[in-house]
Amino acid sequence: MGIRYGVIGTGALGGYYGGVLARAGREVHFLLRGDYEYVRENGLRIDSVSGDFRLPKVNAYAAADAMPVCDVILVCVKTTENGRLPDLLRPLLRSGSIVLLLQNGLGVEEDLAARLPEAEIAGGLAFICSQKNGPGHIRHLDYGKLDIGSYNVKKSAVLNSVIDDFRAAGVPAELSEDLLFARWRKLVWNVPFNGLAVVMNTTTDRLLAHDSARLLVREIMLEVIYGANRCGVGLKESLAQKMIDVTFEMIPYAPSMKLDYDNRRPMEIEYIYSRPIETAARAGFAMPKTEMLENQLRFIGNETH
Amino acid sequence: MGIRYGVIGTGALGGYYGGVLARAGREVHFLLRGDYEYVRENGLRIDSVSGDFRLPKVNAYAAADAMPVCDVILVCVKTTENGRLPDLLRPLLRSGSIVLLLQNGLGVEEDLAARLPEAEIAGGLAFICSQKNGPGHIRHLDYGKLDIGSYNVKKSAVLNSVIDDFRAAGVPAELSEDLLFARWRKLVWNVPFNGLAVVMNTTTDRLLAHDSARLLVREIMLEVIYGANRCGVGLKESLAQKMIDVTFEMIPYAPSMKLDYDNRRPMEIEYIYSRPIETAARAGFAMPKTEMLENQLRFIGNETH
Repeated sequence: MGIRYGVIGTGALGGYYGGVLARAGREVHFLLRGDYEYVRENGLRIDSVSGDFRLPKVNAYAAADAMPVCDVILVCVKTTENGRLPDLLRPLLRSGSIVLLLQNGLGVEEDLAARLPEAEIAGGLAFICSQKNGPGHIRHLDYGKLDIGSYNVKKSAVLNSVIDDFRAAGVPAELSEDLLFARWRKLVWNVPFNGLAVVMNTTTDRLLAHDSARLLVREIMLEVIYGANRCGVGLKESLAQKMIDVTFEMIPYAPSMKLDYDNRRPMEIEYIYSRPIETAARAGFAMPKTEMLENQLRFIGNETH
Repeated sequence: MGIRYGVIGTGALGGYYGGVLARAGREVHFLLRGDYEYVRENGLRIDSVSGDFRLPKVNAYAAADAMPVCDVILVCVKTTENGRLPDLLRPLLRSGSIVLLLQNGLGVEEDLAARLPEAEIAGGLAFICSQKNGPGHIRHLDYGKLDIGSYNVKKSAVLNSVIDDFRAAGVPAELSEDLLFARWRKLVWNVPFNGLAVVMNTTTDRLLAHDSARLLVREIMLEVIYGANRCGVGLKESLAQKMIDVTFEMIPYAPSMKLDYDNRRPMEIEYIYSRPIETAARAGFAMPKTEMLENQLRFIGNETH
């Protein structure tokens, strides 16, 4: 018997990862909101750098309590929606179900565990460029790697099977021994590029092309690295330069927070900025530049534009 | 015999301060660029909260070497023009002439002294809202106080006479015993409000209306205050709240750097940001938020808009 997957949030992320699992023959149940009618009738269309495909018929639901219980539920909504998670997840859980939070930032697992103690929780970091082009229409532009780690999962064998399923579906997936390490590591990229792209209304390539902005990116990366270190997460200083080099190679890129801002959606300030700052502060480490970016984002997000 | 004044830069600042001195009967010689023809024909028009007036005929010059030597030369150009100062000033100087730099920031006197060792130099801080509305047409919106202090002036009696002249012309003017104190003090306002207004595309009132931005303003003010303290300039912590309270009372205000940016003029990043940061760094004090603002401004100033 294979794993039965649920997908909460069938957008750029959930549509892609759920879609490739379904294409590979896994049983996948998709929760949708605005696109429900369209996807029920027409299925999903995924235009991917690795090959376009269509899923003419998918298990689509407009409400969580219409869905069957699932073995693994991929949470693919933005963290700004996390207040709704307990209600969305409860109908899908049986004893031993695993909730896999494919979200950025720090503290999402802790917060969900506090509100839904019956859930076994894992976290995942998605290294992907994808977007939703229209109802049920996902465009996968580049990358796609998943780093997955347990938060409080009892049977790690299930996580290994999830990794196997993703790999069989063509997704490079890794089981991380240290979820906190994986989360902080991704923050080293997300904290400078997301925030600066919004505040300075620009893209990754412009930030790196300019001396002062590149310096700032680097300094904020180092702040995150030192913050992680102080919290017992051993990131190396050299990671900053490495990530800058990798980003130089990337196509000019508007980070997800910039897309959220431009499309007047709420920004993920809480888990990408406030939590790391608070966590480092409790460990006695100040992150003044990250804090400044947080305050600038809260201001900008609050002004009409 | 009264003091003979020269004014370098007959704009919002020089047009106003030179204008009120001329109205009070002082001998004033104005150096102009684009407005020269117009002002030579039509004089200056000053619309002021303290009463509008016109000076139908003023001593206007298109080139410094056409001007007579002066006793006191008011430098009213932006610091971004300071590279031109030695050439503009040399023709106006005799032994004992005083150059009064009515400019913001830190280090303007040092730099001029290094390049023009024969000059006696004083500095001044202008607390004024004024703008140029058209050729020879200055609008004085509010305030106007001048804090003046010696940098390397030999005869302080002359500075006292300058203060007397300004007071006789209706300008509240004070002789500051400590020019560095006066410069750092004004930076406490200029550093947060100028930079944040540009980077976040907003005005003083919006910054103060929003919790995160007000917090940021306050933190940057404290950074400047601590930086000044480390440099031996005794500013009190309470100055931050005092300046925030005063700014709350002000009319919604676009700081001068915001006006410069919106009008595609260069911004005074060097003397308002880089110099205080460098000066504090040499005294062993880091100003991470000020530094971040500096880098953001350099990036933004370099991008087309």
